[in-house]
Amino acid sequence: MDCGEGTQQRMMQYKVKWFRIDHIFISHLHGDHYYGLIGLLTTYNLLKRLQPLTIYAPALLKDIIEIQLRASNTKLNYELHFKETKDDGLHLLFENDYVEIFSFPLEHKIPTTGFLFKQKAGLRKLLVEKLEGMDVDKSNYKSLKEGKDITDRNNNIIKAEEVTESVSHPKIYAFCSDTIYTESIVEYIREADLLYHESTYLHESLNRAIETKHSTALQAAQIAKLANVKRLLIGHFSSRYLHLSILLEESKTVFENTELAIEGEVFRV
Amino acid sequence: MDCGEGTQQRMMQYKVKWFRIDHIFISHLHGDHYYGLIGLLTTYNLLKRLQPLTIYAPALLKDIIEIQLRASNTKLNYELHFKETKDDGLHLLFENDYVEIFSFPLEHKIPTTGFLFKQKAGLRKLLVEKLEGMDVDKSNYKSLKEGKDITDRNNNIIKAEEVTESVSHPKIYAFCSDTIYTESIVEYIREADLLYHESTYLHESLNRAIETKHSTALQAAQIAKLANVKRLLIGHFSSRYLHLSILLEESKTVFENTELAIEGEVFRV
Repeated sequence: MDCGEGTQQRMMQYKVKWFRIDHIFISHLHGDHYYGLIGLLTTYNLLKRLQPLTIYAPALLKDIIEIQLRASNTKLNYELHFKETKDDGLHLLFENDYVEIFSFPLEHKIPTTGFLFKQKAGLRKLLVEKLEGMDVDKSNYKSLKEGKDITDRNNNIIKAEEVTESVSHPKIYAFCSDTIYTESIVEYIREADLLYHESTYLHESLNRAIETKHSTALQAAQIAKLANVKRLLIGHFSSRYLHLSILLEESKTVFENTELAIEGEVFRV
Repeated sequence: MDCGEGTQQRMMQYKVKWFRIDHIFISHLHGDHYYGLIGLLTTYNLLKRLQPLTIYAPALLKDIIEIQLRASNTKLNYELHFKETKDDGLHLLFENDYVEIFSFPLEHKIPTTGFLFKQKAGLRKLLVEKLEGMDVDKSNYKSLKEGKDITDRNNNIIKAEEVTESVSHPKIYAFCSDTIYTESIVEYIREADLLYHESTYLHESLNRAIETKHSTALQAAQIAKLANVKRLLIGHFSSRYLHLSILLEESKTVFENTELAIEGEVFRV
């Protein structure tokens, strides 16, 4: 998600596996969120990438990338797909067996979306002690694990819910890049296991935050609390703050389970 | 000249004075030569730059910059001028009291120019011992220093050349970014005090150099020799070379006064 200038250097520094990236999500077209993308795309080309890559972003990014490829007379070795994001509600961008990824509107100076990563429920666990008393062919176990009802050898309906249990809570990660404080986002990020929310300023600079359509650490915490998320990660700090602990402390006054999004740190959901 | 991704970080690292830059020259539109420009231009805006900035580059760069400013809804505080470069001969791009800057064609995969910086001759030095025997009003000394002929009190023409001498050799710096070996550039860079010439490969990889329209260290040295320049600076090395000394040694076999363009080094003309 997002790709500022210098992203490639950080990927090298933190040993990111370059070819595990097949989808790139750009929240909005301010430079600190996408100026590193064109370099990454052309480096992939130099590295002889063949696998397709999909970019989810505001419409104009396609033109921006294409004019730069044209200027360098570059024909990519790989398929590059663009999927336009819209800031008018919840949209499913991507889905596979494990995860659904949505965009949802943020409120910033230009069209901006957040992204929501929802893990799909895994296979359910068979309740063997219940199944033992039933006349169910084992070939049906797979369907039951997938949550599908089946029929036993006597054509009785066996509900998956009654003979299996869910293994664990599917995880949710919500990413709110740049946004003014707006409770309109709460409905999208509710109960997230981890919420990243920008926190550009301290609340003493609320006017500046409003003017630049950013949030304060206190406001990020208020959103986390309203949405009843489990953990809050704050970031996108103004360079005026040499010591970030004051931002962390401010957030914790409202939402205790806050952490700082420090460059290079890894947060597991 | 040229502005790859990460230029701002290097400017900070090497304490470049940001507001002494009023003219930026882009040799061609391959990413390693201009992907850092849009970030620099928008940072100048954040820093409240007011003084005009002029960019000399192939025509399409104007569109590339403008679409990105439009995407972020950015109206620059300062005037940004674009002057299109053409790769069809020697063109004067800029001139002031001290220097003339020209573009000249290189030969690469896309339209590319080198840049030539020619210091203007400074004021000439009066030959006082010759002037003493003449009837010249001192108010004419300034004109003589500027190399202009004058008349003495008796209306005799006094040639500046005869009563002044040039103070020092005006310096020439030639910058050849990316180019295949081509003797067509020699006429433009002749007698340069310093020539930067790319040297992507060792001569053992001549085929690769030809294929990618780059030069070898040996070829850079041959150009330096043909043009009778005083010093040669080689750079733009392929990342395959972990030790650059082999490139330096190869160049020195043909042109002894070669140096490596190492990041952060300063070379005085």
